[in-house]
Amino acid sequence: MSRAKRPGEFELIARYFRPLAAGKAGALELADDAALIDLPPGRRLVVTADLLTAGVHFLNDDPPDCIARKALRVNLSDLAAMAARPLAYLLTCAFPESVEEAWVAGFAAGLARDQEEFDVVLMGGDTTATPGLLTLSITALGSVEPGRELRRSTAKKGDLIAVSGTIGDAALGLARLQGRLEPLAGDDRLIDRYRLPQPRISLAQQLAAVGLATAALDVSDGLAADLGHICEASGLAATVEAGRLPLSPAARNALEREPKLLEALLTGGDDYELLFTLPAGRRGELAGLPVTVIGHTEEGAGVKVLDPAGKVMALERSGFQHF
Amino acid sequence: MSRAKRPGEFELIARYFRPLAAGKAGALELADDAALIDLPPGRRLVVTADLLTAGVHFLNDDPPDCIARKALRVNLSDLAAMAARPLAYLLTCAFPESVEEAWVAGFAAGLARDQEEFDVVLMGGDTTATPGLLTLSITALGSVEPGRELRRSTAKKGDLIAVSGTIGDAALGLARLQGRLEPLAGDDRLIDRYRLPQPRISLAQQLAAVGLATAALDVSDGLAADLGHICEASGLAATVEAGRLPLSPAARNALEREPKLLEALLTGGDDYELLFTLPAGRRGELAGLPVTVIGHTEEGAGVKVLDPAGKVMALERSGFQHF
Repeated sequence: MSRAKRPGEFELIARYFRPLAAGKAGALELADDAALIDLPPGRRLVVTADLLTAGVHFLNDDPPDCIARKALRVNLSDLAAMAARPLAYLLTCAFPESVEEAWVAGFAAGLARDQEEFDVVLMGGDTTATPGLLTLSITALGSVEPGRELRRSTAKKGDLIAVSGTIGDAALGLARLQGRLEPLAGDDRLIDRYRLPQPRISLAQQLAAVGLATAALDVSDGLAADLGHICEASGLAATVEAGRLPLSPAARNALEREPKLLEALLTGGDDYELLFTLPAGRRGELAGLPVTVIGHTEEGAGVKVLDPAGKVMALERSGFQHF
Repeated sequence: MSRAKRPGEFELIARYFRPLAAGKAGALELADDAALIDLPPGRRLVVTADLLTAGVHFLNDDPPDCIARKALRVNLSDLAAMAARPLAYLLTCAFPESVEEAWVAGFAAGLARDQEEFDVVLMGGDTTATPGLLTLSITALGSVEPGRELRRSTAKKGDLIAVSGTIGDAALGLARLQGRLEPLAGDDRLIDRYRLPQPRISLAQQLAAVGLATAALDVSDGLAADLGHICEASGLAATVEAGRLPLSPAARNALEREPKLLEALLTGGDDYELLFTLPAGRRGELAGLPVTVIGHTEEGAGVKVLDPAGKVMALERSGFQHF
């Protein structure tokens, strides 16, 4: 037992989590049973919750500040996918009984840093010790102008399919961390992409403000699988040209060395980029935005990926499933 | 690996969780990245989140429907403590990789039953497999008339202290389940109290509607510890007369057999009764309510418990702390 090594539950909360709720009256200093939240007038509440557990969503020896920030960011990415503006979050943690105070301090420091970056504050939650693995659940609250929210089910036949940033970096970063991939130039950036997603909050709001995106989600299970979700929800098929996939220089190097990696880039998870559809006639409005058109929707069902030679690829796994 | 034994993640969600979101447009059939929630006009959002993990908050072989209902109810109890009316909830689950479909079915059936009982609906969440222990996190959303919310920090000097229902049953029930206590008449009811809390939702709203309660919380860490929370937040001391503690017939039997159990009743957790303060002059308004006055607040700090002979009790542990 390491009980003597660190403060108790209430002290940990007071020392590391209460400061994260400072300045927000409705958080009631995390000392009450629930938080009171006022929505900006005329806006609609948007809520999402994601759970992360050691060995599945992060590695046990990932730095604690990165684990904290990833947990927060995957939730902010879900808000982004709806074009919502983040407001606040709640955090529940099951810390292993052996957790050290320094680890909790690093974890809270990561949250503090991202609270500033994304203008959100901790409004409540729960801390417990577990004989099991580190498990975190975050509920993120945001707001959206009614009618401006982005959905998965509203893509139209003949829409273009676009994606932000670059795809596949996080999957390569994870493969590097797990030793499944030889060292690469630009490794660090790939590992960063795995550990620290960049939720596309402002891009999504920009697209929604002018009604440019017809449907959207964030790429968490892998591009092919997530595009499948849009297709299924919208009752459409999609064709993607793998040759158009936006790749980072490091991913491009990896792919040149090992062309078989293309499938991993298409199906790897953890990108947290914005995948969306738009009317073909409005393609010009993408100019200047960090997005790439990779395909289009059509009548039918399912996702077809064409390789750079124009041949349909047979993807062995279409994306990450937990079971 | 038991992957072949049960459906995958998306099938489990479709089969067992999507029906729990039926009929609520903003839940978007759990198929989108986040949920859209409309508050009743003129009311304020109240949010709370609690995490439950196997071996800490429930026992591994507790029935799955009870585990689900307890996870929901402890959150509804937090809403009750603020006098909020429940609206919806989000659920994140880390299921052990070995979980069987029948277990998940029982778990979802428990949620369905309580959704009906408490008029709430599932609006979102996340399901994952973990190499660790079953861990659940629920975020409950409710609403309150602004200004009518109950707090911990607003007790007044000279207030009476009252508690709903009976105290200590859940602690005895847990002791029975763990074999730390000899069989008792009424065992089953004690075990039920441990497994299935009864959130005091309507009582709290009744007290708040007429401004009778000055401060409140729900008893989860144990009566003595939770009263300590009110005292600390309100800057007051409290005296409780143990002889006035409302006990169930089974708890009374246990106490007669073993007087030392009094401390366990005062410090055991999981009661989920409402503990509140009220002006001494309004005691008469409690008539007909399932509540018992057990003490009063005074200047100072800390909680003093007098035994039935009027002697100050020295409590070895004041309540449950996770670390």
